[in-house]
Amino acid sequence: MRRGFDRDEFEGRLARARTLMNRHGLDGLLVTTQADIYYFTGFLTGFFESPTRPWFVFLPATGEPVAVIPGIGRALMETTWISDIRSWASPDLLDDGVSLLAATIMEKIGSGRIGLPDGHETHLRMPLGDFRRLEDAISPAVRISGDEGIVRALRMVKTTNEVAKIEHACSIAGRAFDRVGEIAHAGAPLSEVFRRFQMICLEEGADQVRYLAGGAGPTGYFDVISPATDKPLQTGDCLMLDTGLTFDGYFCDFDRNFAIGKPGDEVAEAHRRLIEATLAGFEAAKPGACARDLYHAMDRVLTGGKAEEGNGRLGHGLGIQLTEWPSLIPADETLLELGMVLTLEPGIATRDGNMLVHEENIVITESGARWLTPLASPEIARL
Amino acid sequence: MRRGFDRDEFEGRLARARTLMNRHGLDGLLVTTQADIYYFTGFLTGFFESPTRPWFVFLPATGEPVAVIPGIGRALMETTWISDIRSWASPDLLDDGVSLLAATIMEKIGSGRIGLPDGHETHLRMPLGDFRRLEDAISPAVRISGDEGIVRALRMVKTTNEVAKIEHACSIAGRAFDRVGEIAHAGAPLSEVFRRFQMICLEEGADQVRYLAGGAGPTGYFDVISPATDKPLQTGDCLMLDTGLTFDGYFCDFDRNFAIGKPGDEVAEAHRRLIEATLAGFEAAKPGACARDLYHAMDRVLTGGKAEEGNGRLGHGLGIQLTEWPSLIPADETLLELGMVLTLEPGIATRDGNMLVHEENIVITESGARWLTPLASPEIARL
Repeated sequence: MRRGFDRDEFEGRLARARTLMNRHGLDGLLVTTQADIYYFTGFLTGFFESPTRPWFVFLPATGEPVAVIPGIGRALMETTWISDIRSWASPDLLDDGVSLLAATIMEKIGSGRIGLPDGHETHLRMPLGDFRRLEDAISPAVRISGDEGIVRALRMVKTTNEVAKIEHACSIAGRAFDRVGEIAHAGAPLSEVFRRFQMICLEEGADQVRYLAGGAGPTGYFDVISPATDKPLQTGDCLMLDTGLTFDGYFCDFDRNFAIGKPGDEVAEAHRRLIEATLAGFEAAKPGACARDLYHAMDRVLTGGKAEEGNGRLGHGLGIQLTEWPSLIPADETLLELGMVLTLEPGIATRDGNMLVHEENIVITESGARWLTPLASPEIARL
Repeated sequence: MRRGFDRDEFEGRLARARTLMNRHGLDGLLVTTQADIYYFTGFLTGFFESPTRPWFVFLPATGEPVAVIPGIGRALMETTWISDIRSWASPDLLDDGVSLLAATIMEKIGSGRIGLPDGHETHLRMPLGDFRRLEDAISPAVRISGDEGIVRALRMVKTTNEVAKIEHACSIAGRAFDRVGEIAHAGAPLSEVFRRFQMICLEEGADQVRYLAGGAGPTGYFDVISPATDKPLQTGDCLMLDTGLTFDGYFCDFDRNFAIGKPGDEVAEAHRRLIEATLAGFEAAKPGACARDLYHAMDRVLTGGKAEEGNGRLGHGLGIQLTEWPSLIPADETLLELGMVLTLEPGIATRDGNMLVHEENIVITESGARWLTPLASPEIARL
């Protein structure tokens, strides 16, 4: 699987951004996060793990994009398609890129309104104090507003090249899940299973295992976001592993449940129901359907259609981030479009505050959904 | 190595926060990031990889801390020392925790000023639009300002328990570096070395390999933040691997350089100089010295004391994040205190735009610095 994208991939993304900027009367877009910067430039680094330095990419409605970045990133940014790169010696305790960014914005547009992602699932990756300094430096000529959801709208619909990377990540995780029997058995501490599973993901080709959660117990697990404890697996446990590994900056996000020995009837039945719900979500996932339609299709199987609030969301988008827009919840009316990549993630409460959760990944095509993950069998896998 | 902390660890952190709040006339602190929330609560999860949901912890100057969090995190938060947990069904497209947080703040303090980290190296992990809604909901009775650097000041000085976790992470990475000869040899693609090195880190006990960067070439590498390419290692290359792996939420951050076969004279000499600079930084690292003193001590060895801007920073704090305050740069006057954990990270430009970088981790004790990493030998390791 080749890495990177051709220049026309990025030119297409920029052209679509410009179309939306024009539609919304925006004179530019400012992005600050690892994901948004990777999306527009191809600048891929784990270095955002360090919170020290801010990074900026400014996309004027006309003219070329500009990267305004710490000097430490210049050499890597020069390997991307971005040619206008401005850098400073960061960290600078007095002016950490603010005046350089302000000058760049004034030079590129001079006046008007620029959009910054400010809606659900976004955050501003720069110090709030510096953001206020930036606003002061460019106002009143230039005003910063929200981005009208432009970045979300763009990133939500994947190109064929993006889908291929996600599918590759899914295939790596699928092979890793096939090997869980090598590491999970009665007596093995869950923390050790987590470590060994990450090793298998890497051996199968993951660049990084950015996310791993899971749990184990005779009637499921008490949540789906906990790190592993050192508690040993026991015969009769239901073990769940949920991974978001990456390939070339793109995530998969799916899980598998396993029975250590013979599963309890309740777990076995819950698992069958989860697969049935997943299939119902898959059938509903066609262009023109809404995010909430998938929720209701799955919820009908899970609860008979009660749509209880505590049920949580039953899936979401994914791509450059582990979770992206939309949410499969009753309130989300996002229309499904060709190229959207989604997780289907139904859950069932069992007993004692425990639950089972299943998750697969799909892409929306003209004829309906297509699996990106190797769909699990209704019968829970036995180890 | 045991996981977690006793309750008195968190009570101590809170007590110190209250002392500083009183000193600065703040009626509370609001934190939103994974690192700050883990610091005050012990809530440890990889789930922040998902940008969907905001998380809040409010620390009133008097009274108990309150977690205002998505329902999906309630079960895990209940395992921490925090007893006042308020949750909502997130994602909520109309009100994603904003009114619950506003009501909590009004109930706990009613009026006054609360601090939110807004300085260098911070960001606000919630949508900017929602932050403005929060400000509107609690003003004019409650005003949100910066946190006067309180959270930075607290997190910068580690407790003995925190140092032990960082040292444990360092020992894991140290054993992994000792095994690089198993995976790095002429002909091995760098991307494969990266994958195998992560596997070794996990096998040696890492919870996660959150950061790995590196490079290879006959005169060093062109930057220190790039992901691996598929280019095979060649005899005569200098290979560098720099890892930030975690144990129980705490990072190490150090690197090792290796020669594939016989190193070039320039590389061998640069490596000796880097170790000499590291030792100079170590000698200077005593309570009462400044961050910049360490910079100058190392820079004297590296450049004869030119303190050139392009030299970059020569180290930084670390702990719950890969990089933390302070920065070893000429402008940073942060006084070193007992319990501060730092990296010493000198770099030397070689030829063709390449460089060598070396990095070790230390903790400040009464008698000076103590190594947390197994100090590398001046002679570059040969594979």
